[in-house]
Amino acid sequence: MNTQSKTNGVVAQRLAQARALMSREGIDAWLVPSADPHLSEYLPGYWQGRQWLSGFHGSVGTLIVTQDFAGVWADSRYWEQATKELSGSGIELVKLQPGQPGPLEWLAEQAKADSVVAVDGAVLAVASSRTLASNLYAKGARLRTDLDPLTELWDGRPTLPTQAIYEHVAPQATQLRSDKLTRLRGVLAERGADWHFLATLDDIGWLFNLRGEDVSYNPVFISFALIGPDSVSLFVASEKVNPALRKTLESEGITLREYTSIGAALREVPREARLLVDPARVTCGLLDYLDSEVTLVEGLNPTTLFKSQKSAADTAHIRQAMEQDGAALCEFFAWLESALGHEPVSELTIDEKLSAARAKRPGYVSQSFATIAGFNGNGAMPHYRATQEEHSQIEGDGLLLIDSGGQYLGGTTDITRMVPVGTPTAEQKRDCTRVLKGVIALSRAHFPRGILSPLLDAIARAPIWAEGVNYGHGTGHGVGYFLNVHEGPQVIAYQAPATPQTAMQPGMITSIEPGTYRPGQWGVRIENLVINQEAGKTEFGEFLKLETLTLCPIDTRCIEVSVLTQEERDWLNAYHAEVKARLSPLLEGAPLAWLNTRTAAV
Amino acid sequence: MNTQSKTNGVVAQRLAQARALMSREGIDAWLVPSADPHLSEYLPGYWQGRQWLSGFHGSVGTLIVTQDFAGVWADSRYWEQATKELSGSGIELVKLQPGQPGPLEWLAEQAKADSVVAVDGAVLAVASSRTLASNLYAKGARLRTDLDPLTELWDGRPTLPTQAIYEHVAPQATQLRSDKLTRLRGVLAERGADWHFLATLDDIGWLFNLRGEDVSYNPVFISFALIGPDSVSLFVASEKVNPALRKTLESEGITLREYTSIGAALREVPREARLLVDPARVTCGLLDYLDSEVTLVEGLNPTTLFKSQKSAADTAHIRQAMEQDGAALCEFFAWLESALGHEPVSELTIDEKLSAARAKRPGYVSQSFATIAGFNGNGAMPHYRATQEEHSQIEGDGLLLIDSGGQYLGGTTDITRMVPVGTPTAEQKRDCTRVLKGVIALSRAHFPRGILSPLLDAIARAPIWAEGVNYGHGTGHGVGYFLNVHEGPQVIAYQAPATPQTAMQPGMITSIEPGTYRPGQWGVRIENLVINQEAGKTEFGEFLKLETLTLCPIDTRCIEVSVLTQEERDWLNAYHAEVKARLSPLLEGAPLAWLNTRTAAV
Repeated sequence: MNTQSKTNGVVAQRLAQARALMSREGIDAWLVPSADPHLSEYLPGYWQGRQWLSGFHGSVGTLIVTQDFAGVWADSRYWEQATKELSGSGIELVKLQPGQPGPLEWLAEQAKADSVVAVDGAVLAVASSRTLASNLYAKGARLRTDLDPLTELWDGRPTLPTQAIYEHVAPQATQLRSDKLTRLRGVLAERGADWHFLATLDDIGWLFNLRGEDVSYNPVFISFALIGPDSVSLFVASEKVNPALRKTLESEGITLREYTSIGAALREVPREARLLVDPARVTCGLLDYLDSEVTLVEGLNPTTLFKSQKSAADTAHIRQAMEQDGAALCEFFAWLESALGHEPVSELTIDEKLSAARAKRPGYVSQSFATIAGFNGNGAMPHYRATQEEHSQIEGDGLLLIDSGGQYLGGTTDITRMVPVGTPTAEQKRDCTRVLKGVIALSRAHFPRGILSPLLDAIARAPIWAEGVNYGHGTGHGVGYFLNVHEGPQVIAYQAPATPQTAMQPGMITSIEPGTYRPGQWGVRIENLVINQEAGKTEFGEFLKLETLTLCPIDTRCIEVSVLTQEERDWLNAYHAEVKARLSPLLEGAPLAWLNTRTAAV
Repeated sequence: MNTQSKTNGVVAQRLAQARALMSREGIDAWLVPSADPHLSEYLPGYWQGRQWLSGFHGSVGTLIVTQDFAGVWADSRYWEQATKELSGSGIELVKLQPGQPGPLEWLAEQAKADSVVAVDGAVLAVASSRTLASNLYAKGARLRTDLDPLTELWDGRPTLPTQAIYEHVAPQATQLRSDKLTRLRGVLAERGADWHFLATLDDIGWLFNLRGEDVSYNPVFISFALIGPDSVSLFVASEKVNPALRKTLESEGITLREYTSIGAALREVPREARLLVDPARVTCGLLDYLDSEVTLVEGLNPTTLFKSQKSAADTAHIRQAMEQDGAALCEFFAWLESALGHEPVSELTIDEKLSAARAKRPGYVSQSFATIAGFNGNGAMPHYRATQEEHSQIEGDGLLLIDSGGQYLGGTTDITRMVPVGTPTAEQKRDCTRVLKGVIALSRAHFPRGILSPLLDAIARAPIWAEGVNYGHGTGHGVGYFLNVHEGPQVIAYQAPATPQTAMQPGMITSIEPGTYRPGQWGVRIENLVINQEAGKTEFGEFLKLETLTLCPIDTRCIEVSVLTQEERDWLNAYHAEVKARLSPLLEGAPLAWLNTRTAAV
C-alpha cells in the first residue's frame, strides 16, 4: 500500500464519520472553506480542517460533503495537485473557472426544499453568508452556521499558535498607536459610528504597531480588536504578551483580553451602539454574538485605507529595505551565474541561496511568501512551488523565473526576475520583451488621483495584447509595510470590479507584474513594486505618478533590445543607472562586478 | 422692456399657475425632467415642457418647483446659457457637478414626512422612479406619478409630430425584419420571457427597418412595440404610415395600432406573461398599465446589443458612406482654406458650407447632430453651438474645432478635426499633438473580446495624462447604422461604470475623441469612428482590433511632428495613405489638390 492509498483510506474513514455526524444533526450538505475567523490568506493549522478532511493540501479550495457526494472546488493552479491528492479518495475535483459558478452557487443550485446546509459561521464572511442564506431561502432551504463539526471529528486538531507578539518600534514604526487610534476615531465619527470591530490581522497589527509569527510569511498574530467610545480592547492569548509589553499597552489605555473572549465582548456591546464593520472582512459567526438591536454601519475598515497610504517617513524606510533586498539579490544572482554549468543547481537550491543572502541583510525578518523558482515548464505555473519530491535541475537552455520577497522591519518586498539559462530562444526573448514593455508602460504612467485602479490595467497590457497575448492573473496587488505582501484596497486587474474603494491615493504601494505563460514550455513574469507619488496639480486636476521601489537589474540578455522604443530604452537605462548608483555602496567583489555588468546601458 | 424680461414675466406667471395647481392637488414638489416616454436624447416639442415652463432652452436640464423654490439643475456646458436665460425669472440655476447629488437626490434629501413629490410617470424611467420612490419612502414622503400637470397648464402645447415613416430598404438594410424578429424571439426564450415591450425609438427603428423624421438628427419616429408569443404590434400614429407600407407590414404579420393605444395594449398583456423590459429604457407610467401579476424579466433590450454589432454587409455600406462623407469634408476644407483671409468666414458659415457639401453626396439624409464649429475660446466648450445672436468670425490666429456628422442611408458619421488659422502657437500645437497621440494609441490597440469598454479608456488617455492634462467627457460613444449618433451599450470612458453590458463585441462602432479644453482660450478634439474587428484567436483567447472608419486628413500643421514616436508617425502616414487612396476617386480639382497636400507623409 503506497502513501497515497493509505491517505485515501484515512480520508474515506473521516468522510464516513462526517456523514454520520451530518445525519445525526440533520445536515444535508456541509461546506468546509479554506478560511479562519480573520479571513486570512495563510491559515494556522487549527483552521486547516479542509486539508485534514479531504487530503488535498493546496492552500485554497473548498470542500462540500453530502451523503452521496464529496467535492473539492479548486482553481487551475491546483488542478494537477488536487487530481493527484484526491485520486481514489472518493472526493471529486471540481474545476473552478472564472465566470463559472463556485461552490456557494452550486450549493444554492442543488438545494432542495427543507434541506439544511451547514457552514461553520466562525469562518464564513458576513457578505458570503448573506448571499448564501438568501439563495438557499429562495429554494426553501436553510443555512445553519452555529456548528463546527470539526470540533467533534478532528482528533489531534492542532492548537492555536502561541508565538509571542512584539512591538514594531521606531524608527521603522513612524506613527504612534495613539495617533492612529485618534485618526480611526475621526473616521468612525464621520461615518456616524461609535464602535468598531476588527478581525483582519494586518489591520490590527498596523493599528497597534504590533507584530507576531502566527502564520507563515505575514508578520501578524491571531487577535481581534474592539473599539468603543471610551475603550480599546485587544483580544489576544495572554501567554503571547510579555509583561513589559502588556504594561506598555495598558498604560496607553488598551485593555488586553483573552482571544477566546471575543464572543462575550461582542455580546456586551450596548444595543444603542452604531458599530462599523466590513461585511467582507468579518465572519457571521462573530457578528451573531451582537445584540440584534445594534446598528451596523458597513464599509471598508478605515485602517485598510490608512495602512495602504504609506507616509513619507515609511517610504524612506522602504527605500532602504529595497536597497538591502536588491543587494541580497545581486549577491544571489552573482552566485547563480557563476554556479550554472559548474555545479548542480536545482529550483530548491535557489530558494536556499536566495533566502540565505537576504537573511544576512540588516532588518531582515523572514520571507514574505514562499519563493517561486520555476525553470522552463515549471515557470508556466504562476503559483508553482518546488518541493523535495518534485523539482527541476537548472540545466540546458531555457528561462528561469524567480519570484521572491522578504519581510524587513522597514518594509515588505516582492520581486520577479527572469534568468536566461544557456541560450534562450528568440520566442522566449520575445515573450520577455513584451512583458518588459508592459512593465515600462505602466511604470511611466501618470494618472488622475482617485482613479479606480482596475482602470489602469490596460496601460500595462496594451503592448502584450497587441500581439495576441494575455495572462490570467492581475497586473498588480497592494503591498503592506512590514505586513502582508498582499493587501488592498487597490488592485490593478481588468478582471476585478472597479469599486470606489479601489481608488488610487498617494503612498499606495502596488506591484506591476505582467506575464506570459506557455504551459509545459516556459513562463515569463517581471515584477517591480511601485509607489504612488504626487505628480502635481494642474488646471485639469491632481495627478499621480509611480516611483519604482524595487532595485535589481532586469537581465537584458532575455530582451530583444531592437524592438524596444527609444522611450522604453531610456526608461530601462535610467532604471539601471539608479539601481547601480543605489546598490553599489552595499556591494563588493563578485556581486558588485555582476551589478556593473547587468546594469550596462542598452 | 427687453425680450428677456418679457420672457421672465411669462415664466413667473406660468410658475404661479403651476403652484396653484400643485396646491389644489396637494403636491409639495414637482419635478419636470428633459425626457419623453422613449427616454430619447432629442425631444419633440410636445415633451419640451421644462423649456416652456422655465424659459431655459438648453437640451438637458431638470426643473424642480416647490411653493417657495424653483431651480433648474444643469451641467457645466449649460451654465452660461442658463445663467442668462434664468436671470430674473425667480428660478435658480443649480450647478450639476460630477459626483455631486442631482435633482432626484435633492428631492429625497429635502422631503418632509407626509409630503408629496410629483413627476409625470410617462417620462420617468422605471429605474429612476424606483430609486426616488424608495428614498422618499425612507423619509415618510410619497412619489406621485399619475399626473402630467402640463396637460392643464400648457396652453398651445405643440402637437405630436406627424412626419411620415419610411422603410430602410436593401441594399443598405441588410437584414430582414422577419429575421430580426426571429433572433429577438430566440433571446426572449433564452431569458425565459415570452413578451417584450420596447419604447426606445432606435431599437424600434432598427427592429422594423423603419425610419422617420420626428426628432432632429436621429432618423426615428415616435412609437412603441409590443411583442407577444404570437403577435407583433407597432404603435404609431396611423397618419404616418402610407397604405403601401401598411400593407407590407401587415402582410408580414405586424399589427399596426395607434400610438396612443399603448396603455390599453399593456393593460391587455395576460397576467401569466413573462415580459422582458429594460428598466432604464421604459417609463414607470407605461409599466403601471400592466396587470400587477405580470412577471417582469429585466435586462438590456436584446435589440440594443444586436444593433450595436454591425454585420459585414452593414460595414461595407458604412465604408462607402465614410468615403462620401470624407469627400464632402475635403471639398469643404479646400473651400475653407481658400476662403480664410480672403472672405469673411464665421462659425455659422462653416455649418452652412459643410452641410451643403454633404448634401450633394449620394445617400445623404441629414446632419447626425448640430455642427459644432468653435474658434479659439468657443472651441473650449465641448458642446458649443454658434447662433445667429452669438458667434465668432474666423480671423487672426488660432485653432478652429469642427465637430460634425451626417446621416446616410448606409451609415452615420461623426468626425472632429482641428484647423490651424493663421499661425497656431507652440502650446496649441502641443495640445493637438498630445490629443493625436491619444487617438493613435487607442486606434492601434488590440484587446480581449468581451473586455468591458470603460477599461480601455486609459490607453487613449495615458499620453495625455502623462503631461498632467485631462478632459471631462468620455473618449468614445457607440454609433448607430443610419440611426442615433449616440448609442450603447459600449462606452469608452473611465468615469462610466464598467457593467457587464459594456463588453466589447465584433462589429461595434465607437468614437475615439480625446480632447483638451482651455477655457476662454482654445479647445482641441480629434475624433474618428472605429469598428471592432476580429484580430484572431490565439492560445490566450480571442482578440479584437479597431478598423478606423472615418476618412479625412488630420491637419499636420497643428502637429509637432518631432514629438511623435516612429510608431505614431507610421500610423499617421498609413492612415493618410489610406485616406488618399480611398477619397481620390471621388474628388477632382481643388478638393483633390487639397487632399494630396494634406495627406503628405510626415
